[in-house]
Amino acid sequence: MGEFDFIGRHFKPLAGPGSYGLRNDGAVMSAPFGHEIVVSSDTMVENVHFLPDDPPETVGRKLLRCNLSDLAAMDAKPLGYTLNSSIPHKGGPEGRYGEAWFAAFAKGLAEDQQRYAITLLGGDTTSTSGPLVMTLTIFGTVAEHKALTRSGASAGDSVWVTGHLGAARLGLEVRRGHLEDPTGKLVQAYRLPTPRVGLQLGTVASAGLDISDGIVQDAGHIAEESGVRLRLEASRLPIAAEAAAAPEHFQEMRLLGGDDYELLLTCPPGHEAALMARGLIMNVPLTRIGKVEALKKGEKPGVVMVGADGKPLSFTTPGWQHF
Amino acid sequence: MGEFDFIGRHFKPLAGPGSYGLRNDGAVMSAPFGHEIVVSSDTMVENVHFLPDDPPETVGRKLLRCNLSDLAAMDAKPLGYTLNSSIPHKGGPEGRYGEAWFAAFAKGLAEDQQRYAITLLGGDTTSTSGPLVMTLTIFGTVAEHKALTRSGASAGDSVWVTGHLGAARLGLEVRRGHLEDPTGKLVQAYRLPTPRVGLQLGTVASAGLDISDGIVQDAGHIAEESGVRLRLEASRLPIAAEAAAAPEHFQEMRLLGGDDYELLLTCPPGHEAALMARGLIMNVPLTRIGKVEALKKGEKPGVVMVGADGKPLSFTTPGWQHF
Repeated sequence: MGEFDFIGRHFKPLAGPGSYGLRNDGAVMSAPFGHEIVVSSDTMVENVHFLPDDPPETVGRKLLRCNLSDLAAMDAKPLGYTLNSSIPHKGGPEGRYGEAWFAAFAKGLAEDQQRYAITLLGGDTTSTSGPLVMTLTIFGTVAEHKALTRSGASAGDSVWVTGHLGAARLGLEVRRGHLEDPTGKLVQAYRLPTPRVGLQLGTVASAGLDISDGIVQDAGHIAEESGVRLRLEASRLPIAAEAAAAPEHFQEMRLLGGDDYELLLTCPPGHEAALMARGLIMNVPLTRIGKVEALKKGEKPGVVMVGADGKPLSFTTPGWQHF
Repeated sequence: MGEFDFIGRHFKPLAGPGSYGLRNDGAVMSAPFGHEIVVSSDTMVENVHFLPDDPPETVGRKLLRCNLSDLAAMDAKPLGYTLNSSIPHKGGPEGRYGEAWFAAFAKGLAEDQQRYAITLLGGDTTSTSGPLVMTLTIFGTVAEHKALTRSGASAGDSVWVTGHLGAARLGLEVRRGHLEDPTGKLVQAYRLPTPRVGLQLGTVASAGLDISDGIVQDAGHIAEESGVRLRLEASRLPIAAEAAAAPEHFQEMRLLGGDDYELLLTCPPGHEAALMARGLIMNVPLTRIGKVEALKKGEKPGVVMVGADGKPLSFTTPGWQHF
């Protein structure tokens, strides 16, 4: 199998404007006048971020959606992406990661390219002696100096989250054989997150990010970058019904587990109605889960999650650990 | 070792404008008015693109330089890059790819960031059960619709190449123990290519690319995209002195082997003096090695390499095969 034939069969049909049909040293892109380009990148490794028997369609879509979620967190509009694949020789052309796998992988990407109005710009394909490794780097556009960041939260802001939490992390437990999933919704949430693009949060939210490593750990990034404390109420967290139905010992995982790809936002008091309107227009659930507090002298930025009695909960782990 | 600490120690010092200090979901960048952004991406895998005992300083610099070479091939000015690393757990923190390796890797990058006026924008760090995999995605700026491509060559254009060829591929043979390298220049060429940035070729050359897979294979891309034949004279190829000194049975490898990262250019007759002037100003050797010919009816685009007697040479392989 030649590299160029392989790219021609599977990736060329995904290529869009500026890609030169993937037959150039690089691609070109541009932002409208008064806009800048947002770039974000995620790598997924077989057995770390997906499992060898996950459907190839969803592996591609998840990789794209996790990156779209990063654009959403910065309030950027999708523009294009590059894809780099390192394909196991052993599982190569005739093995698991052969023609059929990549055909299905590309089909999944094609479907989401339509849905999110984005096309492939370029990338690289290599072989490896190890597991399948894929890097997707995504580009979006945002009005100059208007990208949403993690550093804008102020004392008095409210804290919000989109959608529902906990199902994706428990979906991984289902895949590992630790939990039943009669409706299939836990595994579905693990395999296909819903990036919250299009909410147009730039003029509404004061800070934002997407929850990939668990709400407490990620809320910590906003606290740290904004120099504040985030006080979250555990009882207000919009836990997905299927996740809430799991046995009690999954409680911590449900609250802190990652892979949700929902947005965590802070909102100044005057903007709450506008934020809720955005959610209604885009049909995205938005739940108020806490508030931003000022630090007293000597206090460090951080996150406090309180129970129904108002007392801080303590956890055995802060969230998802990469290594 | 935490992901965030690791990134903070090794990669944060490389981060530049728009990166938010690597503490955001993504980065921002913009092109000057009337310019667009060029993007190119390369993945390097341990044992495929570099060897585990290559100096870490040069592994990082080579990855950056190969990507800079792609920018040069499109006549783009370096702007920034993202870096994704999948680090072997087994060789991790206490192993080969631990703190010392990444400190040296980042030091090499820092040196070349200075040299080529480019900074880190973001990326991702994961673990893997396989070999070290690194993806670098580079961004540059070019005047709108002025990017040099592979499709502009016309019959009558001359064909040019920058620098010298053959040393890098033979450097790999040295590393494999198949060849002596008394001056060390073959291994040096393999480890540290010289990207030909800054030549400002956009208004001078008609087509261009960088030679990564061997001159005949890469010349074939220009022939294909431009619908022409490239006739190259083997005796005119600027083979590096150290490569020319290798035994006769390295002849084909010297001519066709990849990893040169020199630019292959075509130039309309009226622009040759301007092209040579660019080479003189930037102190980059430029050698005329052949010409572009029209296809006769029924002929396919392609490359002919002729010997001193004007007869076509034939080779056992077209160049570097990725898989």
